[in-house]
Amino acid sequence: MSKEIGITVKKSEDFSEWYTQVVIKAELADYSLIKGFIVLRPYGYAIWENIKNIFDRMIKKLGHQNAYFPLFIPESLLKKEEEHFKGFTPEVFWVTHTGDTPLNERLAVRPTSETIAYASYAKWIKSWRDLPLLLNFWNSVLRAEIKSTKPFIRTSEFLWQEGHTVHETKEDADKEVMRILELYRRLIEDYLLIPVLKGFKSDKEKFVGALYTTTLEAVMPDGKVLQMGTSHNLGQNFSKPFDIKFIGRDGKQYYAWQTSWGISWRLIGAMIMTHGDDKGLIIPPKVAPLHIVIIPIFYNEEEKKKVEMKGKEVFNRLHKAKLRVIFDNREEYTPGWKFNEWELKGVPIRVEIGPRDLREGKVTLVRRDTSERVSVEEKFMVQEVRKLLKKIEKNLFAKAKAHLNNSIHIVKDYEEFKRLLDSKGGLLKACWCQKPVCEKKIKEETGADIRLIPLKKEKVFSNCIYCGDKASVVAYFGKAY
Amino acid sequence: MSKEIGITVKKSEDFSEWYTQVVIKAELADYSLIKGFIVLRPYGYAIWENIKNIFDRMIKKLGHQNAYFPLFIPESLLKKEEEHFKGFTPEVFWVTHTGDTPLNERLAVRPTSETIAYASYAKWIKSWRDLPLLLNFWNSVLRAEIKSTKPFIRTSEFLWQEGHTVHETKEDADKEVMRILELYRRLIEDYLLIPVLKGFKSDKEKFVGALYTTTLEAVMPDGKVLQMGTSHNLGQNFSKPFDIKFIGRDGKQYYAWQTSWGISWRLIGAMIMTHGDDKGLIIPPKVAPLHIVIIPIFYNEEEKKKVEMKGKEVFNRLHKAKLRVIFDNREEYTPGWKFNEWELKGVPIRVEIGPRDLREGKVTLVRRDTSERVSVEEKFMVQEVRKLLKKIEKNLFAKAKAHLNNSIHIVKDYEEFKRLLDSKGGLLKACWCQKPVCEKKIKEETGADIRLIPLKKEKVFSNCIYCGDKASVVAYFGKAY
Repeated sequence: MSKEIGITVKKSEDFSEWYTQVVIKAELADYSLIKGFIVLRPYGYAIWENIKNIFDRMIKKLGHQNAYFPLFIPESLLKKEEEHFKGFTPEVFWVTHTGDTPLNERLAVRPTSETIAYASYAKWIKSWRDLPLLLNFWNSVLRAEIKSTKPFIRTSEFLWQEGHTVHETKEDADKEVMRILELYRRLIEDYLLIPVLKGFKSDKEKFVGALYTTTLEAVMPDGKVLQMGTSHNLGQNFSKPFDIKFIGRDGKQYYAWQTSWGISWRLIGAMIMTHGDDKGLIIPPKVAPLHIVIIPIFYNEEEKKKVEMKGKEVFNRLHKAKLRVIFDNREEYTPGWKFNEWELKGVPIRVEIGPRDLREGKVTLVRRDTSERVSVEEKFMVQEVRKLLKKIEKNLFAKAKAHLNNSIHIVKDYEEFKRLLDSKGGLLKACWCQKPVCEKKIKEETGADIRLIPLKKEKVFSNCIYCGDKASVVAYFGKAY
Repeated sequence: MSKEIGITVKKSEDFSEWYTQVVIKAELADYSLIKGFIVLRPYGYAIWENIKNIFDRMIKKLGHQNAYFPLFIPESLLKKEEEHFKGFTPEVFWVTHTGDTPLNERLAVRPTSETIAYASYAKWIKSWRDLPLLLNFWNSVLRAEIKSTKPFIRTSEFLWQEGHTVHETKEDADKEVMRILELYRRLIEDYLLIPVLKGFKSDKEKFVGALYTTTLEAVMPDGKVLQMGTSHNLGQNFSKPFDIKFIGRDGKQYYAWQTSWGISWRLIGAMIMTHGDDKGLIIPPKVAPLHIVIIPIFYNEEEKKKVEMKGKEVFNRLHKAKLRVIFDNREEYTPGWKFNEWELKGVPIRVEIGPRDLREGKVTLVRRDTSERVSVEEKFMVQEVRKLLKKIEKNLFAKAKAHLNNSIHIVKDYEEFKRLLDSKGGLLKACWCQKPVCEKKIKEETGADIRLIPLKKEKVFSNCIYCGDKASVVAYFGKAY
């Protein structure tokens, strides 16, 4: 593989350039002609399909159903919940014409579907018998990004899912918020192998229009903190303006309680950053488009024939075992070139079959994460592959977990706070008086905001990190992308 | 079930009203606040998911991969292929602002993705080794509908798939067009049970920018003809303006050959029209969200307990057999009410369990399509259900096939043509001289256009139906929605 095709910078030396090169060169995504928009290429799309299928199964098990709502939202409808409108309007793409004809009312291109969905919910919900309503939409949303864009992490259009549920009581909505947050944690930790912290957002950082927002946060290798998914209790903030009422079990009329929650293709960005290395991607097995690549090695025509036959046999064996496998017998590339390409693409295991393997009735397995090689008897291959995949999962998660643990710093002093933020980044655990002005000043002076307040309130260990007054909560501060 | 909930008109008496009532009352879709846009509700979405999964498996088996391209297309890019732009521009939704800021260049909301995709293809394709490129996108497209809208059949936004492939030669592109047309036929005939005719479109009716368009057409119960899916050979009409070139096997540079093809949620509309009856939907088993609904029948508490237990047992048995089944033991509704509701929703088989069934160790199976009842021993239930599902499929397809056959009329005389079109509709098989003016005049005078010219050229049996000159092809005329 030529220099041009492989990654030309080290992850530890120029993280941002490394990230972009991995995204483009591993063919996960490409820039499009419009600034801020990317094309999700087949290899990236296959990862998204895996993530989608995993989460779709999880929520369907709990009784959620999918639906599709229109892409456009009339301006008057978007305005119905005032805070929500104010929050979204600066980044809305507006449709003003069809063909040459101006529209009577501007149409917002969906920045999120609360308003368009809840106009329908108001029609559909009449009685407690219609509740809970548990819907989810897989679609794309559009928010003009003014800041510099980064593939998967910050783009003007992104693929996501948005859940929108309706309940009889606040308690039911609370429970929904938490069970979804837990599903997100399982998806992110058990499948994407990225450890996260669970918490609440501060009022300043919560979703516009929500009663409260819960979040999962992860720390990337450069010390920046990434929001991985959020789950909101909307209270009755939307049901009142949208008139979502139901006749309760006691025959009286009530406004409903609602939640909304979402994760996006940003998870792919987090996965790249967390696990990749100087050679390129390392994809966690459960979301990998391919678990295994088989590469034949031979030095003459006779060997070629034998090795190819064995390669097909091995392919069939692994394929039958429901492993995602490819047999790369392209003739126009050397084995070395193929090694590099599939390493760049992060396939967890490489199977090499050469003349010596053939003679010994063995195959060689090579781990992407550690480069370790194991020679195994062919008859044990499938079970050995399964074992290796588990080991890779353990190793990737353990490494990421150690990084997260090392990225949490307890601070009591504002000078130390600033010093640590600049030198190490990560999450700074500090006490806060809960006055918005302190949160705001810290953001202005350091660029850090409150990433989360732990779900389980932690014990206050100092005065407010900023003003020195009595503190009321422990908060985790950090710089986001 | 009250009158208001059930369908209040007969399919044979007011087809259009019947259709709308089925869509809305079976909760497949709902109108949205914006004219011409619908909400796809969970029951309708589940049918779309089934259609999507079936077709997605088919194309992946042939090596196609999914990707996602941006929703917006800059005006200058949409203009690159002139015919294409002229064809789409009157119905394009234009984005002109983000927030309060006017854009430098208008952005078209995706009416179809040829232009945005091919700008990327030009970057990605360099050598014959990069071909064929076989991509597919599942997304929604937007085309402002000026005519009256009809859920699923004619809406300003619709869900669909669009395939976009690139090949070395015209022959390869021809083959791709035909193999996709055949996949569409399989999907539509074998899964949706709607018989279709295969053919070419005339130059007037072909896709704007295509070399030629192939199509599948079905006749609905009201005699109107519905285009079910199209597959286009784009020739080099796009590769030239978009500069999609490759180095061939001989080392020389060539423009690539391309195809594009699509089916949409319109298939759901065709399915409703074709199979439904005065009670509501009848959903073909292979795309039905539910195969079976189990309804318990009892007259006292003691019976209730026993029947409920048996109901759960039966549910588990059917569920384990991988049948899609629901046990409707809601207490707030009577069995009669439930019968009507699930008939409206078109579930192929109803299982009734009453005290007498219990005593005899039997269950009662009721077919949705014929209302036939069978009492079967419980131990034979699963195999009997499978048999019934097959029978339902056969019956639905046979009825639809008979309708199609009865809807094709051979005509040699223009007066008869007009008379038949008005009295029966359907497809009028007539000879044509291939002059565009005759096609245009027929359309103006009768409202019928050429739906298809058979793939296998049929023998000319008269002079041109319009001008009386020598005819060169047999064409099928009809009125579309």
